[in-house]
Parts: sequence; C-alpha cells; structure tokens
Amino acid sequence: MTPISRRSLLKSAGVGAAGITLGAGGYLVGQESAEASSGDGTGSVPFYGEHQAGIDTPAQDRLFFASFDLLTENRAELRELLREWTRAAAEMTAGEMVGDVNEMQLAPPDDTGETVGHLPSNLTVTFGFGPGLFEKRGLGLAGKRPAALREIPPLPADELNPGESGGDVCVQACSDDPQVAFHAIRNLARIGRGTVAMRWSQLGFGRTASTTRAQDTPRNLMGFKDGTVNIKAEDTDAMDRFVWVGGEGPAWMRGGTYVVTRRIRMLLEIWDRSSLEDQELTIGRAKYSGAPLGGHDEFEPLPLDEKQASGLPKIPVDAHVRLASAAANDGERILRRGYSFTDGVDESLGELEAGLFFIAFQRDPEKQFVAIQRRLGSSDKLNEYIKHVGSAVFAVPPGTRKGGYVGETLLG
Amino acid sequence: MTPISRRSLLKSAGVGAAGITLGAGGYLVGQESAEASSGDGTGSVPFYGEHQAGIDTPAQDRLFFASFDLLTENRAELRELLREWTRAAAEMTAGEMVGDVNEMQLAPPDDTGETVGHLPSNLTVTFGFGPGLFEKRGLGLAGKRPAALREIPPLPADELNPGESGGDVCVQACSDDPQVAFHAIRNLARIGRGTVAMRWSQLGFGRTASTTRAQDTPRNLMGFKDGTVNIKAEDTDAMDRFVWVGGEGPAWMRGGTYVVTRRIRMLLEIWDRSSLEDQELTIGRAKYSGAPLGGHDEFEPLPLDEKQASGLPKIPVDAHVRLASAAANDGERILRRGYSFTDGVDESLGELEAGLFFIAFQRDPEKQFVAIQRRLGSSDKLNEYIKHVGSAVFAVPPGTRKGGYVGETLLG
Repeated sequence: MTPISRRSLLKSAGVGAAGITLGAGGYLVGQESAEASSGDGTGSVPFYGEHQAGIDTPAQDRLFFASFDLLTENRAELRELLREWTRAAAEMTAGEMVGDVNEMQLAPPDDTGETVGHLPSNLTVTFGFGPGLFEKRGLGLAGKRPAALREIPPLPADELNPGESGGDVCVQACSDDPQVAFHAIRNLARIGRGTVAMRWSQLGFGRTASTTRAQDTPRNLMGFKDGTVNIKAEDTDAMDRFVWVGGEGPAWMRGGTYVVTRRIRMLLEIWDRSSLEDQELTIGRAKYSGAPLGGHDEFEPLPLDEKQASGLPKIPVDAHVRLASAAANDGERILRRGYSFTDGVDESLGELEAGLFFIAFQRDPEKQFVAIQRRLGSSDKLNEYIKHVGSAVFAVPPGTRKGGYVGETLLG
Repeated sequence: MTPISRRSLLKSAGVGAAGITLGAGGYLVGQESAEASSGDGTGSVPFYGEHQAGIDTPAQDRLFFASFDLLTENRAELRELLREWTRAAAEMTAGEMVGDVNEMQLAPPDDTGETVGHLPSNLTVTFGFGPGLFEKRGLGLAGKRPAALREIPPLPADELNPGESGGDVCVQACSDDPQVAFHAIRNLARIGRGTVAMRWSQLGFGRTASTTRAQDTPRNLMGFKDGTVNIKAEDTDAMDRFVWVGGEGPAWMRGGTYVVTRRIRMLLEIWDRSSLEDQELTIGRAKYSGAPLGGHDEFEPLPLDEKQASGLPKIPVDAHVRLASAAANDGERILRRGYSFTDGVDESLGELEAGLFFIAFQRDPEKQFVAIQRRLGSSDKLNEYIKHVGSAVFAVPPGTRKGGYVGETLLG
C-alpha cells in the first residue's frame, strides 16, 4: 500500500498512483492548492521512538484530548484496537490519510477528510491506560498493574464531576492546527467504535507550558506566564529522574511515564476584580515580566528565603510558586503540558466557563502530583480563584518502532 | 494617553513611557521575547471604516462569538457601553492593551493580560443588535427597529435550545490566534459587567468559508469543501446587492447588514458510516476536489440542468448544493463566515458533539437566510445528518470613524 499524503491527494499523479476510485462525479482530482492551513504547518514530529511523542517533544499550540471507556474484556480485541490506532496515528502524524483511500465508492471513506490539504502541523498522538483497564477480569491484566498507577485520591478543594473524570484509555492529540488535532481524535474514536466509547473530551485553544528551552513561556488565562520552571526536554537528567519510568518497574512501563489530567476551572470574574498587587502576591511573580517578586528576570531562582525590609518574605508563604516549588516538595518536580480551555457560559453562574486543562507527566503520581497538590489544595492562595472539576490518571507506555504498536509491552 | 502595544509592554522603554507603576516585586520589566504566538500574527485589520470589520474582511482561522442580554433600559448606559466597547475593540484590534495600564497597583488591571506578547493576529470585532433591544421600553428604540430585523421564525427540522439562541447584543471576534479572540470577548464582557450578561458563547476552531478570492476553500467536519460559491468581497456588486443595507432603510442601518447565526450539530457518527457515494450525492460535489458532480473543477458552475446518460440529473434534486443555490432561491445569496466547533461528548448519545457554527450576513434575513433555509429544511438530503440547535439574528450597524462609536447612528 502506498501512503497517501493529504496534500498529494489533491494532485492527479498522487491520486492515480494510489489507485483511488473516482468520485461519483467521475472526477476526483482538483487543483493542488494551499487550502486552509494554520501557520506554516510543515513541521512534523516522528511517531516512532523509545518514548511516545507528545511528552518531551515541543508543546504545540493546540490540544484535543479524549478519554474512553473500554467496552470489551477480550484481550485480542484490545490488542487489535491498539494495532489499528498505532497505524492510524503514525499515518496522521506524517500528514497522510488514514487507511487505504483506494476503496470502493460504495464504502465509507477510511479517513473522514476534514484535513485533506492540511499539513502535518506537528501532530503528536499519545496513548495511556487508566487504572480501570487492569480491573477488567477478562483482560487478565491484574498482575501487570503498576504500583504507581492508582486512582488519584480525593484532594483538598476538589469539586470533581465524575462525567469529566477517569477513563480506561486516553488519547492526547497536540498540533499547531486545531483541525488536525480534532481529526486525529475523531478518526481514532471511529476506528474504536464498538470497542471503546468516548467518556469525555477537551479542546485546548492555547498552550500554557513550554517543554523545550527554545520555546517562550506562554500565558494562562489569568494573564500570568505559566510553567517558567517546567522541566525542559534538554535537561535529560531531570527527565530521567522525574518523568521516565526506570528500573522500578514493571518492565513493560520502562521508558514510559504517568500522566495526570485535571480540569481546572478559573473563577475569572473574581480574578479580574482583584488588584494587580493581589494577583501578583497570589502567584508570587510579577504579572508582565514573570520575574519572581523581588527579582528582575523571569528565569532567576525564586528568592524563597529572602525577606523584605519589613521582615515579611519576598514571596508570601501562601504564594502559588512557593508551594508548588521543588524546594517545598522534597525536591519533586513534574513535566507540565497544559492548555487553556473555554466551554461557553456556565448558566448557573452567568459566567464565562474557562480555565486550564492541566496535564502533567511524572514517574510516580503519588510522590509527585498528589503530594504537590495536597500542599497546594490546603494552603495555596490561588484556591480562592480556581476549582478542580475533572481528574484522571493514566499509565503512558513507552514508544514503539515501525511494525510494532503502542501497548505491545503490556499486551504482547 | 499613550497607547500601549502588547509587545512593547515587555520592553523597558515602552513601560517607562507609559508611566506604568512597578509590580509588587518592584520590577515590571522583562526581556522582549517572542512569547507564544500563533503563526506569524503580524497582520492587522483596520477597525474603523464605512463598514464594521469582520464581514467582508478576509475570514480568519478562529472565532469566539458571544451573545449578551441587556440588563438596563437606560439609553445613556447603553450608549456608554458602546463607547467603551468601541474604544477597547479598536485597541485590541491594533494589538494594544485595553485601557491605560498606568494605573495603581491597588486597582485591578484594565487588561486581563493573557495576550501580552501576542501580535494583533488579524483580530476583528463586530457588534450587532438583537430584536429584543427594540422592545425594551426604557430605551425608546421601538420606532427605530428595522422591518428586516425580526426573530427567525420556526423552520423545518429545528431542534432549538433557547439557552443557545437569541440575545440583545452580539459580539463576533475573529482572529488567527484563538487566544486573541477569547481575550477580546472576555475583556468586553468584563467592561460590560452589570450592563450586559453573557447569554451564550461559541468557540470556533476552524473556518468553513472564505470571504476573499485569495483564500482557498476550507473543509468542514464532513470533510467537504465549504462555501465554494460564497460571495467574495471583491465582488462589490454582489456585496451591495446581497449584503450591505442601502436606501431601503432605516437610515441608521445604511452600510450595515444583518447576521444570522445557527448552531448546527452534525451527526458525525452517522455521516462517517455513509458511503463516499452517499456523501457525494448528499452534497452534490466530489469530496476531495470539490467539483460539482459531473464536473471537473471546484469553481465551475453547477450543472443543474444537465442529466446523466441514465436520464437522472447530474446533481440530485435533493442535493444540498442544488437547494442552496441562487438558481433555486430566486437569485438570492448570502455571505457566509462559519466555523467548525466541538463541545465535547454528548452524554445522552455517547457521541462527539461537533458541527458548524453557521454565520451568514445579508441585507434581508427573511428574503435570504429564512427563504433558503425553508427550502433546505424541508427537502435537503443533508437533513439526515444535521440538526439546528441554536439560532439568533442581529442588526449589524455600519462602521464608525475615530472618535465615534459603533451604534452611534442608532443611539445618537
């Protein structure tokens, strides 16, 4: 089978070579055209590798994330789904059509078509397994459940909605073109029909973290730079220490990681009525420059032990950056990759519903996200302005090579 | 007052000149940086002009749209709101901070800040007035209501949700950067607090129409090119005939237009199970090339009167493009500017909730959108795959010049 690029499909030569049947009109071929593309879009991220893409690769601007319930307890069916998902994800990542395209006019197209003409746009597709997967008796995976994969326990200030939480399998699609990210999830959901049912999904319109040093720090919807001290991919020591699973096992997770997602609603009307001073004292940084309070530069270390002339600490004891810092958390850190979202108007409040879809990768959620969030949830001044309404955790297996599939280390 | 560009705010010179107070940390100034930008973003669209921007200006890639209920019946308050909205919209369109920025540390910032460092990204902000505005007795506008501005009547196949329909005032924000579009609506909602309450809003992640000839035709979520025969801004005869209000009055609407929005849910799971032939016969075009069935090129005229060898028409009698064509609608046309949306999972169906947020500008909704939609709603084969769940109509007044405000022709 010849792979069909979404761009070459529009050229007669490409279409002929693929053996595509003619449309009902007898003519499939249009002029090659640039079509609607978002930005440049020519970049692409390799799908295959030791680790899955979408973790330490540069965070793209847009997200579509979905969580699925597994409808089968048959291990062969799950294996077949992951094989098909892997193949489709590799095709889409390369900017190719899903499937063969050279099918009969009387069959539904393999690819839903809305990205024909769109470039790869740095799409990454990342798969994870929720704790529930290991409880499905028929799958026989109970003995393979990693000790580190446990449901996130109730945390201070949680206001979780079960319908926006949990799930057996997750797919994170990131791209610089939101239509490319949407298309990826939609086509995977379609491939999985009957085997998985979508439980919840989340569109993210703006990234709120950088994962490489070359990227500038984006701003979240509070108007502050977010993720200044995020782990960067170039810091391979930190990646190995805090993100990638190593010898602690299980063996099938080596080179993988664990992802925690939290849907965090921001109470923007209240935030927007707060003074600049209150906002900066809440976060612990200057709003525009991103520098720590009392500092000059965004990237300088937090002066956690320094005091003002008044004797008060430069960074308040309940400031978000202090409580989230490695120093306050036994040296623990996480790799963040979150996105801003809006889901319209909350009718009960008459307010714009918006916030941060938090995504964090780590080696041990209990020691990292959960411990940090326990501290934040009980003392963080930011709690006056946010609430956590969704929560999920997934084991993210290592990457695969061509011919393999994501999850093969678990399912064989 | 010196306007503060969102980029120059990050430079010390710009900050000093603006007289901005220091952050709580004593230092506001960070290094000039590219920050998170979407695509190039350097483009900007003039805010002032004969017509409001965002109608015949090139359709941007992303949308945030909001509809508001007016909470006051005091005409002076409405006038003041529109003055403030106009000033803020002009600032944001130019890539400037909303308001003065040189305020006290103890006051909330005028601008919410999430686009600091973001370029103008071709933002346009377009305002409209719903029929309800003219019914508020205290405003005294009943006599100024245009005959053409009437609630959209019930139409065949409507399944409208009142919570996603109607409204007294609308704001359409389009940009190539979704964070810039979100920021515009959020800041206008904030300025209007107490005078208006947001009724519904809609994020659109991908444009589904072109409004100028230089733009390629985008694809909707059915995978088809959408809006091939849309009115293009360069066709000023068509703009004058079908879009801009002329001598038919009222005088305050001359140079304005009327916008109809429809939230159209696509039943994508059903669509995706349909054969390529069914899909193409439903639309009346070839899926990949966009050419009319029986034709070769996307932009060739629809062969509405031609027949196949079998004697059947090349374009089926119930095909969407036939029923929506000017030929089938007494020559009437509309200017489309819609966007694809997704709002997550419809829990009742377990399906991805997604579709088209349809936006159309026209001179007379009853003769144009309503007449066309009556025909489509009763016969269009596409009805098997869509449902209209939201609906609204607004009078879009003409543009203004510097020192004026949008709506001044109505409110004086």
